[in-house]
Amino acid sequence: MERKVLITDCADAQGLITKITGVCFKHHLNIIKNSEFVDNAQGRFFMRTELEGDFNDALILSDIDEVLPESSHVKLVNTAKKRVVILVTKEAHCLGDILMKAYYGGLDIEIAAIVSNYDSLKPLTDKFDIPFHYISHEGVSRLEHEKMMSKVIDKYQPDYLVLAKFMRILTPEFVEQFPNRIINIHHSFLPAFIGAAPYRQAWERGVKIIGATAHFVNNCLDEGPIIKQDVIPVDHSYSAEDLARCGRDVEKSVLSKALQLVLHEEVIVYGNKTVVF
Amino acid sequence: MERKVLITDCADAQGLITKITGVCFKHHLNIIKNSEFVDNAQGRFFMRTELEGDFNDALILSDIDEVLPESSHVKLVNTAKKRVVILVTKEAHCLGDILMKAYYGGLDIEIAAIVSNYDSLKPLTDKFDIPFHYISHEGVSRLEHEKMMSKVIDKYQPDYLVLAKFMRILTPEFVEQFPNRIINIHHSFLPAFIGAAPYRQAWERGVKIIGATAHFVNNCLDEGPIIKQDVIPVDHSYSAEDLARCGRDVEKSVLSKALQLVLHEEVIVYGNKTVVF
Amino acid sequence: MERKVLITDCADAQGLITKITGVCFKHHLNIIKNSEFVDNAQGRFFMRTELEGDFNDALILSDIDEVLPESSHVKLVNTAKKRVVILVTKEAHCLGDILMKAYYGGLDIEIAAIVSNYDSLKPLTDKFDIPFHYISHEGVSRLEHEKMMSKVIDKYQPDYLVLAKFMRILTPEFVEQFPNRIINIHHSFLPAFIGAAPYRQAWERGVKIIGATAHFVNNCLDEGPIIKQDVIPVDHSYSAEDLARCGRDVEKSVLSKALQLVLHEEVIVYGNKTVVF
Amino acid sequence: MERKVLITDCADAQGLITKITGVCFKHHLNIIKNSEFVDNAQGRFFMRTELEGDFNDALILSDIDEVLPESSHVKLVNTAKKRVVILVTKEAHCLGDILMKAYYGGLDIEIAAIVSNYDSLKPLTDKFDIPFHYISHEGVSRLEHEKMMSKVIDKYQPDYLVLAKFMRILTPEFVEQFPNRIINIHHSFLPAFIGAAPYRQAWERGVKIIGATAHFVNNCLDEGPIIKQDVIPVDHSYSAEDLARCGRDVEKSVLSKALQLVLHEEVIVYGNKTVVF
Repeated sequence: MERKVLITDCADAQGLITKITGVCFKHHLNIIKNSEFVDNAQGRFFMRTELEGDFNDALILSDIDEVLPESSHVKLVNTAKKRVVILVTKEAHCLGDILMKAYYGGLDIEIAAIVSNYDSLKPLTDKFDIPFHYISHEGVSRLEHEKMMSKVIDKYQPDYLVLAKFMRILTPEFVEQFPNRIINIHHSFLPAFIGAAPYRQAWERGVKIIGATAHFVNNCLDEGPIIKQDVIPVDHSYSAEDLARCGRDVEKSVLSKALQLVLHEEVIVYGNKTVVF
Repeated sequence: MERKVLITDCADAQGLITKITGVCFKHHLNIIKNSEFVDNAQGRFFMRTELEGDFNDALILSDIDEVLPESSHVKLVNTAKKRVVILVTKEAHCLGDILMKAYYGGLDIEIAAIVSNYDSLKPLTDKFDIPFHYISHEGVSRLEHEKMMSKVIDKYQPDYLVLAKFMRILTPEFVEQFPNRIINIHHSFLPAFIGAAPYRQAWERGVKIIGATAHFVNNCLDEGPIIKQDVIPVDHSYSAEDLARCGRDVEKSVLSKALQLVLHEEVIVYGNKTVVF
Repeated sequence: MERKVLITDCADAQGLITKITGVCFKHHLNIIKNSEFVDNAQGRFFMRTELEGDFNDALILSDIDEVLPESSHVKLVNTAKKRVVILVTKEAHCLGDILMKAYYGGLDIEIAAIVSNYDSLKPLTDKFDIPFHYISHEGVSRLEHEKMMSKVIDKYQPDYLVLAKFMRILTPEFVEQFPNRIINIHHSFLPAFIGAAPYRQAWERGVKIIGATAHFVNNCLDEGPIIKQDVIPVDHSYSAEDLARCGRDVEKSVLSKALQLVLHEEVIVYGNKTVVF
Repeated sequence: MERKVLITDCADAQGLITKITGVCFKHHLNIIKNSEFVDNAQGRFFMRTELEGDFNDALILSDIDEVLPESSHVKLVNTAKKRVVILVTKEAHCLGDILMKAYYGGLDIEIAAIVSNYDSLKPLTDKFDIPFHYISHEGVSRLEHEKMMSKVIDKYQPDYLVLAKFMRILTPEFVEQFPNRIINIHHSFLPAFIGAAPYRQAWERGVKIIGATAHFVNNCLDEGPIIKQDVIPVDHSYSAEDLARCGRDVEKSVLSKALQLVLHEEVIVYGNKTVVF
C-alpha cells in the first residue's frame, strides 16, 4: 500500500469530481482526503486527491486523461521526501531553522546541499554534515556567478531551490531553469515594502504590524505567486533594528510553513497566484 | 436555477465521493464547491456539496440513499435565510452586533424575535422593529419560566435559538426541544474557565490571552460541540473589568462568525464535536 | 477628585521624568499610570501621565513649563467624552458599529452629527436620534461641497472628524482646518494597496492576508500617521467580493479601536508617525 | 558607560516615580526606558528603569532605599547574558530552537549545560559543544534522581533552569532550591488541559484553537506564574498527532519569547502572577 497525490488542474466542466474520483474507485484506490476549488472568474478547476492503494501510474493517468477536457494538467506524485538545495548569504536564522527541523523530523525534506556567496554559514552547515558550496560573486559577472551556481546545483538534481535569505537578485535566465521551483522568503508583508531594506521602510512609515512573505520566484523581483504570509504586531518603540530582529522569527516560521505546504504537494500555481489546499 | 447544499454524514466506504457526486451529475446539478472529511478514528465520512441547478429534492435524495451505506444522514437544504429567536439578559453587545449586521446585510439571518428575562434591551430591539418578549424569571420556577419562553418561541418556529449572553442555565428538558439548534456564546476560551465569572477567574490566574467560545448547547454547562473560538492578547495591566470590557469585542465577533457558519450550513455536529467546512 | 491626562512631547534631556512627576507630586496629584518613550533617532521625549486629584491647570502647566526644554509641547486634558462628527458615504458597517458601541457604552464618544454625500444612511442614523446632514456633492465643485460640509461641521465644534468609509478625497484646504483631528479607515494593510479598490488589488495579487488601517489624514491620500492596523487570513477561495465582505469586520474593528485610543488621549502624533501608549 | 536595569517592587505611595528617578538623576544616570505599573487591587507599585551611565551600585541602592516605603524589593541588575541549565527528556524541538538561537545570537543566553533523563538529545547537544549530562531516573527514587541532577546543576551556578519539554514532575524540595528561577513550557493554553496528554484532551474536546504556556514553576503542577502564551487555529481535520506536531512550533516560539523576556529582566513575579514590561 502506497500513498500518492493526484493533482488536477483543468478547464471547469460538469461532472469532473465524479469522473476523476470514479477512475480512482475503479483502480481500487482509497481517497484519504479530497480538496477541490473552482476559480469562477477564470472557469478553472483544481483538485488535490490524496490516495492510498496499489498504483499503476501509467494506467491511472491515461484513464484520467480520457475523462478530462483537453489541455488539462494532471500529475500523480509520490509523497516521498523532496530534495532541495538551499541558497543563502550571511543570515543564519532561516537556514538554521530548516536544518534543525530537518534534523528532528519537523520538516519532510532532504537537504541536498547549501550554496552561498559567502562562507559565513559553513560552520553551521557543517554541524549537520551537509555539503556547503561557497561560490563568491566577487570578481565575476552576474551571469558567470549564476553559471557556477547552476553547475553545482544541477549535480544534486533538486526538486526545489530555497532562497533562505539569499540576498542577490537572480536573472531571468537563471529563474527559467526552475519554473515554479524556486521558493523565496521576502522580509515584508508583500506587496508592501517591495525591494531593499523593508524593515527600514516599515519603520519610516510607522506601521503597527510587520510581516513576511514566502513566494515562488518569477522574473519580477518580489512579484511571484504568494504561498504563505504572516505578521506580528509592533509599536512605536521598535527601532528599525528591532523590527528586523523580531521579523526574523516571522521569516523563518513563514518560510518553513510554506516549504511544508509545497513539499506535501498542497500548492498549485496558476498565473501569478497559488491554490493552497 | 436554485442553490442548495447537500450534507452527507455516513460510515466511511470506498467510492462515496464518486457515487454522491455521480448522482448530482446525473441530475444535471453543477457543483459550486465540494468539501469532504473522513474521521479515521471513527470511520466516519462527511461531505458538504454546494449545488446549483433545478432540484427535484425527493428524487435526488432517493438516488443518493441508494448509493450510501445504511443509517446514513443526508439532507438537501436550501440557502434561504434561517429564522432565529435570540435570548438575552441585560448585556447589549452581542445582540447589538447581530441586529446591526442583520440590518445592513452582514449576516444572512432573519431575526424573528428577542426573548429576555429582563426588559433592559427592549429599547435597543425596538429601534429595529423586532418583537421583544419580556418574560421575567422572578416569582416562577425554572420550569415554569422555560415553559413560558417555549410557548413564545414556538410561535416563531425558529430554525435556531441564539443565546446572546443569556445568563441563565437551561434545563435538559428545554434543551432537548432544540437538539443541536441552540447556539451559545461563552465568555472564555473553553475548556478554560468553565462556569461563572470567567474574566475574574482569568484575572486571578494571570493569563496573557483571553478568548470566547461559540458552541451548541447540550445538557452539560459549557460542554457542547464547539463551533468557533477566538482570543486576544492581554497583560498584567488589565483589571478583571478591563478583561470583561475587551472580551466583549471577541464575544460578539466569535458569536457572529459562528452564526454565519451555521446559517450557511457549513457546520456538521457529530458526538461532542463539529466539522466546520 | 478629577482625572486628567498630562501629555509631554519635547527634546530629550536627563531628568525629565523626575522633574515632570516632581511637579505632579508637588501638586498632590496621584499618578494612576505613567508611560514614556524616547525616540533616540530624533532625540525626542514623549510621556503620558494619567493623574488624579484637584487640578489647578494654569499653575501646573506653568510649573511644568519651567522644568522643560524650550519649544516643548505640553497639554493637560480632561477625560470627558470627546465630541465627533462622522462623515460617511453609503456603507453602513463602520457607522453602525460606532453608533451601536456609543449606544451601549462600548466607546467613550459623543456623536454630534453624521454628514454624508448620500442619504442612504439616514434611516440608520435616525434610529439613534442623531442629526443627519445630507450634503450631496452633485452639481457643485469639490471646494463648494467641502465649504457646505465645513459650515455644518463647525456648528458642532467637534474634537475629531471620523471618516467612516467616506469615499471622497478631501482637499488640502479642508484637511488643514483639522490638523491631526481627522481619522480615516482605509480598507487595506497600508502601505499595501494604496488608492482605489484595494480588495480587488489584493485579489489580483493573490495575498494570503488582508487588513485595514486607521490613520490620521494629512494631505497625501492614504499617507497620514498610522494609529492602528489589523489583519485576517484569507485564501484562494475568496473572490474580490468575499475579501470585501470579510474585510468589513476588520475595518470596523480597527476603526473602533483607533477611536478608543484617540479618545483616551493615548495617541501622540509626531512627524508622519504616532506614539500609541 | 554601562547599562543596568533597576527593578522596584513596593507598596504604592505618592511620589514614587519622582523619587526613584530623582535618585537616578542625582547619580547622572540616563533613563533609556521607564515602565511602571500599579496594581490597585493590592496597592502595589512596580517599576522597571533601564539606565545608562557609571554605576556605584551600593550608593545608588542605599539612596533608593531611603526614598521607598519599608519592605520594598529593589534590585539593580546588569544586562550581561544570563547563564542557564536546560533540562530535557526526548523531544528536540524546544532545545533545538534555543541552541540554534543562542548560536546565531537570536537569544541573549549562555547555555551552561543540558541535563536529561535520556540520552536521546546528546548528539544534538554535541553539535553545539555544550556539556550534556545523562542522568537516568531508572532504578533510583525520585529524590535520589533529583539529588543527582542538583549536584550537576549546582556546579554551573545557573541563573535559571529551563524545562524544555522535561517530562518529569519535580518535587517541592527540588523546586524550592530555585524560587522563581525555573521556567517551564506547558503544551496547552493554561489553565485548559492541565496535566498529561493535553493535545489528546484538546482533540477529544474538539477545540478550534490550541496553545502553549511558558510559566515559572512552583509547587503545583502547571500552576505557576504565567510569563507568555500563544495559540494557533486548528480544525476538525487535525488528529491528536497533528495537533501535537503543529503545537511544537507554538511551544518552541512561546518558550523562546518567554526566555527573552526573563533574560532581559522584563518580568517581575508577584504572588502567582507576573508583570511583564
